[in-house]
Amino acid sequence: MKKNILIIPGDGIGQEVTTWGKQVLETVAQQYGHEFSFDEAIMGHTAIEATGNPLPDETLEKAKASDAILFGAIGHAKYDNDPSAKVRPEQGLLKIRKELGLYANLRPILLFDELLDASSLKPEVLRGTDILFFRELTGDVYFGEKSRNEDNTFASDLMNYHRYEVERIARKAYDAARTRNKRLCSVDKANVLETSRLWREVVQEIAKEYPDVETEHMFIDNAAMQLVKNPKKFDVVLTANLFGDILTDEASQIAGSMGMLASASIGDGTGFFEPIHGSAHDIAGQNKANPLASILSAALMLDIAFGLQAEAKAVTHAVAETLKAGWRTGDIANAETAADKILGTNEMGAKVLSFFKK
Amino acid sequence: MKKNILIIPGDGIGQEVTTWGKQVLETVAQQYGHEFSFDEAIMGHTAIEATGNPLPDETLEKAKASDAILFGAIGHAKYDNDPSAKVRPEQGLLKIRKELGLYANLRPILLFDELLDASSLKPEVLRGTDILFFRELTGDVYFGEKSRNEDNTFASDLMNYHRYEVERIARKAYDAARTRNKRLCSVDKANVLETSRLWREVVQEIAKEYPDVETEHMFIDNAAMQLVKNPKKFDVVLTANLFGDILTDEASQIAGSMGMLASASIGDGTGFFEPIHGSAHDIAGQNKANPLASILSAALMLDIAFGLQAEAKAVTHAVAETLKAGWRTGDIANAETAADKILGTNEMGAKVLSFFKK
Ligand SMILES: CC(C)[C@H](C(=O)O)[C@@H](O)C(=O)O
Ligand SMILES: CC(C)[C@H](C(=O)O)[C@@H](O)C(=O)O
Repeated sequence: MKKNILIIPGDGIGQEVTTWGKQVLETVAQQYGHEFSFDEAIMGHTAIEATGNPLPDETLEKAKASDAILFGAIGHAKYDNDPSAKVRPEQGLLKIRKELGLYANLRPILLFDELLDASSLKPEVLRGTDILFFRELTGDVYFGEKSRNEDNTFASDLMNYHRYEVERIARKAYDAARTRNKRLCSVDKANVLETSRLWREVVQEIAKEYPDVETEHMFIDNAAMQLVKNPKKFDVVLTANLFGDILTDEASQIAGSMGMLASASIGDGTGFFEPIHGSAHDIAGQNKANPLASILSAALMLDIAFGLQAEAKAVTHAVAETLKAGWRTGDIANAETAADKILGTNEMGAKVLSFFKK
Repeated sequence: MKKNILIIPGDGIGQEVTTWGKQVLETVAQQYGHEFSFDEAIMGHTAIEATGNPLPDETLEKAKASDAILFGAIGHAKYDNDPSAKVRPEQGLLKIRKELGLYANLRPILLFDELLDASSLKPEVLRGTDILFFRELTGDVYFGEKSRNEDNTFASDLMNYHRYEVERIARKAYDAARTRNKRLCSVDKANVLETSRLWREVVQEIAKEYPDVETEHMFIDNAAMQLVKNPKKFDVVLTANLFGDILTDEASQIAGSMGMLASASIGDGTGFFEPIHGSAHDIAGQNKANPLASILSAALMLDIAFGLQAEAKAVTHAVAETLKAGWRTGDIANAETAADKILGTNEMGAKVLSFFKK
């Protein structure tokens, strides 16, 4: 198979972790006889520094021309603490999501048995958890009109959804539920928000096309609670952009660490694969970041963008073997982990490659 | 002290639990020589059934005339599953919050050592946690203009904040932080939302008036994660209406159960005291609901509305003693709890009274 892959390292630890996502893809190509060619582009703070634009035209063109994108991370504290900044790294990420039509963000909560202890939740609460989030990614209050009045005494953001936006992601989520445990939980705030009432109406309609899937509707406040109380009860979770942002970060504690979670953003064209973690500037450049989320993002790319299931499984298997052998990065180590089992980014990435078997 | 207290049981388990909040207030009055007189009013589904209006004028008048309000719960599945319903129970609650100017919702996460085991989080993660949430309650996407187009293909809700709305709740939160561990974490989504950027700007300004309090700004997705990962790191958490709704429900798992959490809504006039749990129609009328959140809401009323600190402490102490003696309702029992230690609503309420000592 011949594919062009664009690597966008982005900001902070993005560079370090995508290095390993890329190396894993190279290894897969070698071992399975595929031809993956790689290009690189800038985005976020890195791109603002270089060009003044968080998503330079060149990056967008390369993105559109590629078969899949492996992205690192975005953001910088400099902008976070300056509420009046006009240009921000995150605008690059939001714009590329919109331009590529990446309306469905899949966030699987993959639980490795070896990491049951790394979580703040009790192992018996976690064991057996297997959730696949479908977060809508190109609508909601993220993209609605923003306003600020002249004397800075008022600000607003429009939360909104179009029927077709809910329909298309609902279908994707229901399709996935069919291949899993046939349960779908749609999360909204329909007791307060008109947007959520439309969301619920549309999901109720689409549900009729999938009589074999059991549908539940849950309010976001309750869902945020249930996710900690009893994560096992969820199978596929379907939700809007903002609620999905919050719930999936919360759910990262199920997997032990943010450093473990990969995501796939798909839609009309080129797919976009990225860890759900941020740029973590506090540890950037120190060989401390966990490369597993980037490596698992590469696995999602193989599976979802290229349909290479065996290759994807081989990658996930190598990650599992690495964890089974006791190797950890700092974020997934616990009090009992021996110091010489705690590895840096590069050593951890190399370990995974050493466990890789076709 | 002479006070008029309005009881609004509301829907579902509201009636059962407020019975005990009220009895506790009566006991306090007796033992401490106060004169509390009680009136009752309807709201929510109950009020819709009786009058067609979720907040009848009579209820609002009684509320305005009272010194404090003890509220039960609101909501009914009937409306939840009908996205097109025009009249909803929740409108009653939202309207009374607005009409009484209850802009600050205080939600203390009170951790009883005896309930460390009732949580899905590890005891060592929980121990020592003590968080006070300040949730803004009369602004945000809850009250912004809603729209729906004629052919039902589009819906929207306006998220918005005025500067003065952020200022007044920020001051209340900072004042509280001063009397506690002097740390305040303001939660927003300033990397995406204009509303959040105004929020952050204003909090940064108010922070200057409180140089003795350490301020941190955190994104909502990160906060939802940190709350599960390491709840001890929080002292006072200040946030907007929607984010506060989500975070405090999530945080209920720290206290072991939603059935344990009380809240105080304060502002320009009469204070409003209520459990954070919902109407739980599935267990309503079965003598199963946990009355402790209502009892602890009564304690908050004594403390915050009436300045009766000793009385409030005596109530909280009686709750602690009840738990220490091993008594539990179903929601806070665990696998090891002996069956004869699990009580119904009424038996649990009576136990608390039996432990009450001036
Ligand atoms: C960086 C930020 C804009 C982004 C989001 O909120 O979507 C991130 O938190 C994510 O979840 O991908
Ligand atoms: C019932 C609902 C409108 C309400 C809210 O969202 O504010 C509830 O969840 C709460 O937290 O008090």
